Amino acid sequence: MKHPPLKPFDEALAELLACATHLPGRDAVATWDADGRVLVADAVSPLHVPPQDNSAMDGYALRCADVPAAGAVLRVAQRIAAGNSGLPLQPGTAARIFTGAPVPPGADAVVMQEDCEALPGAAEDAGEGAGPASAGTSTSADVSTLGRVRIHTVPQPGQAIRRAGEDIARGAVVLRAGTRLTPAALGLAASIGMDKLQVAQRPRVALFSTGDELVMPGELPPERMPPGAIYNSNRFFLRALLQRLGCHVTDLGIVPDQRDATVAALRTASAQHDLILTSGGVSVGEEDHVKPAVQALGRLDLWQIAIKPGKPFAYGHIDAAAQGGAASGAAGTSGPTHFIGLPGNPVSSLITFMLLVRPFLLRLQGVADVQPRFIAATAHFDWPKADRRREFVRVRRNDQGGLDLFAHQGAGVLTSTVWGDGVVDVPPGQTIARGDTVRYLPFAELMA
Amino acid sequence: MKHPPLKPFDEALAELLACATHLPGRDAVATWDADGRVLVADAVSPLHVPPQDNSAMDGYALRCADVPAAGAVLRVAQRIAAGNSGLPLQPGTAARIFTGAPVPPGADAVVMQEDCEALPGAAEDAGEGAGPASAGTSTSADVSTLGRVRIHTVPQPGQAIRRAGEDIARGAVVLRAGTRLTPAALGLAASIGMDKLQVAQRPRVALFSTGDELVMPGELPPERMPPGAIYNSNRFFLRALLQRLGCHVTDLGIVPDQRDATVAALRTASAQHDLILTSGGVSVGEEDHVKPAVQALGRLDLWQIAIKPGKPFAYGHIDAAAQGGAASGAAGTSGPTHFIGLPGNPVSSLITFMLLVRPFLLRLQGVADVQPRFIAATAHFDWPKADRRREFVRVRRNDQGGLDLFAHQGAGVLTSTVWGDGVVDVPPGQTIARGDTVRYLPFAELMA
Repeated sequence: MKHPPLKPFDEALAELLACATHLPGRDAVATWDADGRVLVADAVSPLHVPPQDNSAMDGYALRCADVPAAGAVLRVAQRIAAGNSGLPLQPGTAARIFTGAPVPPGADAVVMQEDCEALPGAAEDAGEGAGPASAGTSTSADVSTLGRVRIHTVPQPGQAIRRAGEDIARGAVVLRAGTRLTPAALGLAASIGMDKLQVAQRPRVALFSTGDELVMPGELPPERMPPGAIYNSNRFFLRALLQRLGCHVTDLGIVPDQRDATVAALRTASAQHDLILTSGGVSVGEEDHVKPAVQALGRLDLWQIAIKPGKPFAYGHIDAAAQGGAASGAAGTSGPTHFIGLPGNPVSSLITFMLLVRPFLLRLQGVADVQPRFIAATAHFDWPKADRRREFVRVRRNDQGGLDLFAHQGAGVLTSTVWGDGVVDVPPGQTIARGDTVRYLPFAELMA
Repeated sequence: MKHPPLKPFDEALAELLACATHLPGRDAVATWDADGRVLVADAVSPLHVPPQDNSAMDGYALRCADVPAAGAVLRVAQRIAAGNSGLPLQPGTAARIFTGAPVPPGADAVVMQEDCEALPGAAEDAGEGAGPASAGTSTSADVSTLGRVRIHTVPQPGQAIRRAGEDIARGAVVLRAGTRLTPAALGLAASIGMDKLQVAQRPRVALFSTGDELVMPGELPPERMPPGAIYNSNRFFLRALLQRLGCHVTDLGIVPDQRDATVAALRTASAQHDLILTSGGVSVGEEDHVKPAVQALGRLDLWQIAIKPGKPFAYGHIDAAAQGGAASGAAGTSGPTHFIGLPGNPVSSLITFMLLVRPFLLRLQGVADVQPRFIAATAHFDWPKADRRREFVRVRRNDQGGLDLFAHQGAGVLTSTVWGDGVVDVPPGQTIARGDTVRYLPFAELMA
């Protein structure tokens, strides 16, 4: 028997994304609650930010012409806090002003207070009182108690003034449709007054595992595990990753290695879900019942993808006509339900989820850029043995900002993905020598 | 007036972390629901992983001595699926075996099925039937229908066998106390049978903003905003970031710029929270009421931290004796409540949250390594103007894996933090030339 032909990773991803038509539903959610959701319409600013010229500092607003040299003294004629608006600034005067407060008409610069010196109140000059603490009784009291200020620098026109619309002009698109919202993006939307956002519906994902050898943690203690039995771990990380991607997750548990049970589970799940995701059961071994079960209800293609870890992968769908369940009418899905089968090996399952399923789920929600960009970083390790498959080796940044290799890349357990903080994407047939620049992808992005 | 002395960033972070004593509470949570939580006790494996020697492939288990040269033919004497256990392997025979199934006693290698050729059933040789599909009636039928197999390679001892305990030995610490749990860590805990985990309590955080100029989105449309008014954006991203850190968040809204209102808000919040977090109100301007309000109830230090953006920052606490609210008895906090005041400028507020508050909240939960490690990456930009402060400039990775600079670093809005995917940490007094290696921190880690 020959090695079967392997499908290049980029080809597999492109085929998968071509099947990921955007989900039709959209939700209007409070900006407050929209972290992680995907915008379905451009966010256009209805206003200038800042709304008017305002001070970038706590200090004094003035006319540059009044301060031709350092040391000039101006009368403080008004006081403008954030949230107030000022009066036109008379020549020869300054306005005490605070960060974010509107710059008064006539002022053309703000000098930060650290470069200014507040002088005793004007009241002293006018002989009307002992200082700023005494409330004057003359009609000029409100102003005269503000005193005078000495300016220790020569201001430049426009200094420390944020211009109206400088940051965001009215009509500008601040967030494009297809943006996945981060905390920063929520803040940006709020800053233009948007209290609601139109986002894509959450993908509904049904999750199950296959494998008679699998036992759920808590069901049996270690000493009572039968020979060959192992604890299920894949559903734990898959569920958490799906939730981080904003999915509604239905857990269907462990489906027995029997064709009828598998068909029944798929039929029920398909009625109410956009994607059925499983791990295990998709290798070419004769013990796999998932393939014929999906094929009985729709279509399934087994892919041997040229990546390591993560070779076996299956993509298909359940036909709309085959969808079961009591609620398969109006509340059900309108088209075929996607099916993705991941390898049973935990590391392979995790890697293929991050590299293939995550982009697929983001694209279902309308995200355009679904793959994180790599970072060109430095290998502090050797990788002398090339493979015909593209490899994703687990690494961790060291104190020098370079990448260290996890020693035991072949492991069937997740230790490497907990120890590491990312992967290096090693092209097929390539080796790595210490000091080489490599393509690094942080887990924080692949698991986000 | 002179420039005030600035506190170096590392000193500020160290002082802050020194105040972050671990929260006393701990929760026993289902592993299933523990994503993002912080482990408070080592997770020790009660078992070997894998539990016994097992096959890494679908293929045939055999004795290497029986295959001295490629092309040897063996009788297939048993069939072992994952979840089953095999019988001792007799010399001259092979066992059909599937990935994860226990290797039978006597076998010392597994050959992957791609390197094997299944031959017509032994039934043919024995004249007992037409092939593997016919059920034999003799006592040897169960075995004889398994046929024979030709092995096309010369196996090496141990090949494609995962040894018992090879990945995790019984008694090994698989996750250390102080680990923040990721999806991969949940999977790892599940794989050793842990269905519950001891984690630190969630920090309880009260959040408010100050500033009479602030309006909540949705309260007023843009055309009705009074002069000087701006939409509140900080609480939107702060809440989302706090939730990502596993905090219980209480939103106290916008507190008016009045000392009494501020004191009342602080007193109420302190009784039921571990941290009170505010943005705005902590600059040295006279409009700030937060500082005297906190000082009336405890202690507050204003720090001018030598970072850009993000200079003003306040850390303090509310004394236990000053804590108010009806429930300040047994259900309240037992010690002082932490207080952190962030700058009002959104970009400064976001940056100081990510660099200072995030580590503080992780440390409260017992995390040891609270700051993400930088990545040594390549600047595809020039940064010719050094600053006396350490700068965190917003950048984005390009298709070459290098870093592009956001053009308008000075902006008061969050556009740079949405456009960018991270920051470069520029030391005080340094410039950057295109091609330089710089310290890059991805937002995916700073916002996680």
